[in-house]
This record gives sequence, structure tokens and C-alpha cells, in this order.
Amino acid sequence: MTEILYGRWAVMETLRAGRRAVQQLILAENIEEKGIVSEIIDAAQQRGSAVKRVPRRMLDDLARGANHQGVVLRVAPYAYVELEKLLDVAESKGEKPFILILDLLQDPQNVGSLLRVADSVGVHGVVIQDRRGVGITPAVVNASSGAVEHLNVVQVTNLVQSMKKLKEMGIWMAGLDVGPTILPIDRADLNIPLGLVLGSEGEGIRRLVRDSCDLLITLPMRGHVGSLNVATVGAVALYAAWQARAWHGWEAPRKPS
Amino acid sequence: MTEILYGRWAVMETLRAGRRAVQQLILAENIEEKGIVSEIIDAAQQRGSAVKRVPRRMLDDLARGANHQGVVLRVAPYAYVELEKLLDVAESKGEKPFILILDLLQDPQNVGSLLRVADSVGVHGVVIQDRRGVGITPAVVNASSGAVEHLNVVQVTNLVQSMKKLKEMGIWMAGLDVGPTILPIDRADLNIPLGLVLGSEGEGIRRLVRDSCDLLITLPMRGHVGSLNVATVGAVALYAAWQARAWHGWEAPRKPS
Repeated sequence: MTEILYGRWAVMETLRAGRRAVQQLILAENIEEKGIVSEIIDAAQQRGSAVKRVPRRMLDDLARGANHQGVVLRVAPYAYVELEKLLDVAESKGEKPFILILDLLQDPQNVGSLLRVADSVGVHGVVIQDRRGVGITPAVVNASSGAVEHLNVVQVTNLVQSMKKLKEMGIWMAGLDVGPTILPIDRADLNIPLGLVLGSEGEGIRRLVRDSCDLLITLPMRGHVGSLNVATVGAVALYAAWQARAWHGWEAPRKPS
Repeated sequence: MTEILYGRWAVMETLRAGRRAVQQLILAENIEEKGIVSEIIDAAQQRGSAVKRVPRRMLDDLARGANHQGVVLRVAPYAYVELEKLLDVAESKGEKPFILILDLLQDPQNVGSLLRVADSVGVHGVVIQDRRGVGITPAVVNASSGAVEHLNVVQVTNLVQSMKKLKEMGIWMAGLDVGPTILPIDRADLNIPLGLVLGSEGEGIRRLVRDSCDLLITLPMRGHVGSLNVATVGAVALYAAWQARAWHGWEAPRKPS
């Protein structure tokens, strides 16, 4: 099986992460070999990959009309991990588990955006459901600027079962929701072994998923539009959780010496 | 002058806000009159607007290929306000000024997304520069889900001059930046008369704009990708600032009685 990744950062980070078998780097014939493009070529050659130049419209076809920026990579499919791996990652870092759980999100742009933030705050992994929701498609890789290549993603057949399993391992499930009697996000203690649960665009989290949560939290809103994009809500929540952990693992920028 | 707005929420909120003179509502001839669409028709008729049905491809032309969802509105251009208005709004609400300042952002999607969050946290206004940056175009209205129709936006010719003016009115300028010796966002006191300054995609805030800031703050990151989208950074920062104000103006959801 082959996947066609596209976009400069998606391709660069896939090569950097080095998790997928690389088959071929394909460039638009008129693209200049400088900056990030020359870095991509170097990285592909170091991985022993062939580099091919083709007319730009062949790339348009390969990327099915998506914005490929002149760069396409043929690779093996995304390598999902097992649920247990996430706990191992947390343990090896000496941190309380910090996991993002996505319940049937549909929009690759939202999922990619969330995964980029998930990488930025250093989650130990992401759990998604394998049917009806978006998987780690090339569109998601692109929308995440390649961040997902560095993340551990588990694809499960039954999200509620997996949440139960995580709970048995001592992880608390916190669902983002709206409605009465829900804690504003700053009132919840998020410095715990945490699974942050986000529902789908429009529908929110499903009832059974909500019922599996140990706590429900909400993002206050006082605007006229009355709703926020799930990628926005998730970004704020992920940052709130990391802040509750006192930015653990962050190297504060230093004055250049 | 006429503008062509498109998209269900963009059109609905424009009609709800009622700030623009409405010329005509144009619907795809096959669109069903239910849910939000029938609300749009009602709102347009209440505003005395004509309602017209046309073949869908005419809407494609009007919206220049954008995703119009079968709904287009001919209206007067966006009505910007004067800088002083923002202070009046803050005063009338009995709140310390809370202003979002955008330095030459280019992507309508990012600007729209930020304006939707700005509405959600209840900023008193937004300041943007009138050349080289994105204005309040139909694409921005759409990307904001119409939130911008409820916001007060000032378009200025010289951002640095306007920042100076705001500073003279007692407002502190806090710039989001990356680099050495910058305060992580939770260490800065944001419960002050605040202008939150965001730089452009790629370039960040310009040097003169940065020099006009009273403080610089940063969002910690520990991921592999090493940068975040400005809409994400802005959303987290806007929420941090509102949280510092103890969610002032938020009506916590109550149990239904």
C-alpha cells in the first residue's frame, strides 16, 4: 500500500520523523532547489529515496487537486500504535499521562490543526475512532504541517471501550461540552492523568462517550455567534491542561550567550 | 458600492446584526426552506429585502467559486468604526478596555477565525491596518461565521500611530512573539486595559510594531514542528486574557428549572 503525501511541511516532517518507508520524492519540474525544498531533497536522499521531477499537472493529479506546493512523497501508510504505547511514552518521560481523544471529528482541517497543537503541548498520544471519523489521511498530515508524523496515534474500533480501558489504567476522562452545570475550564484540576475528549463538529460528543467521562468542562463564551470551532476549543483546552502542568518539558527561551 | 456576502452563518449574522443596508437575498433555486434557511428568509423580509431564487451556478459566479451553501446577500460594505468608539464600548460596559490588534495578517481564514474568538471572549474592538493586510472582506465574514458583523473594527492607515494613541489613552500593548527573554503568557498580568497584538503569518509582528509594545508574551511550545498557526496562538491568548478578567460578562449556564 502506498500513500501520497503532499505539501512542503508535511513531506519535510515525514522525512524527519523517519517512521514511514519512503518510496519516492516527486517534485514539480520548475521548483527551485532552495530553502525548505533543498532540505527536503537532502532528507529524502539520506533516506535512500529516489527523487523524480515531473510536470506540475502530474502533481495536481497525484494530490487530487490539493495544494501540494510542488512537493509530493510516496510513502507507506501511517503507522498507528497500540493504546498501551501511550502509557509507556508518559512513563518514559516521567509525566502524568496526557492524551487527546477525538470522537468522530469529520473535517481534516480541524483534525490536522488539533494534532499540530497536540504536538506543541507534548501530548503522549491521540486516540481516534476508526470508522465514521477522519483517520490520519494525507489531508490531515498536511493540515497538521506534518506534526502528526511525530505523534503516537491509536485508532480504535470502539471509543467507549478504549476510554474504559484508559480509566482502568488510572486516567481521568475530561469531556469538552456545553450545557448547564458544566465546570468552566479553569475550575477543573487538569494536572491529573488526563484524557481530553473532544466531540465532532456540530454534534459534540456522543451520549455514550459523554457518559464515560469523569468530568465535563466548558469554555465560557459571551459572543453573539454562540459557538466556536472544535479546533479552537481544543487548542485552548490543550493549552489549559499543559499550563496546569506548569509547562512541564518546556525549555524557556534563553538570551543568546 | 455593493458587497456579495455568502454562506449561511455569514448571511444570518449580517441580517441579525442589522448594521448593513441590505439590497437583496439570493438563494439557490433548489434550496429547501427549513432550519437556518427559513430563518434567513424571515430575517431578510423583516429588513424589507427582496428575496430572489436563481440557478445554483449563478451563485457560484457571484461568490466567485467560494462555498456559498446556496445563500448570497447583496449588502452595503462593512462599516468600520473610529478608534475612540472602542473606548466608549469598554466604558459603557464598565470594563477595562480589551482590544485585539492585527498587524498585517494575510489569510482571510486566520482573520475570520480570530474574529470569531474575539467575539466569543467579548473584546471591545479590533484594529487592523488598511493596506497590505486583509480587510473585512466577504471571505473574512464567512470565515468568522458572521461574528465580525457584531464586532467593532477600526481600519487604520498607520498601526504604530494608532498604538501610540491607544497607549496615551492608558491601554497597554502586549505583543505575542517568540524569542529569548519573553514572558510565558501565564506570567503576564493581562487583567489590565489591554491591546493584544498579533503579527502576520510567517513574519510575526513587524519591528516597529514590536518596539511599540509595552510587553512581549509568548506561548510555550515543546513540539517537533516548532510553530503554531497565528489563529491558534491568538485564540489561546484571547482566552488567557479573558480568563485573567475572571470571565467577566459570562453568564454561566444554569440548570434548567
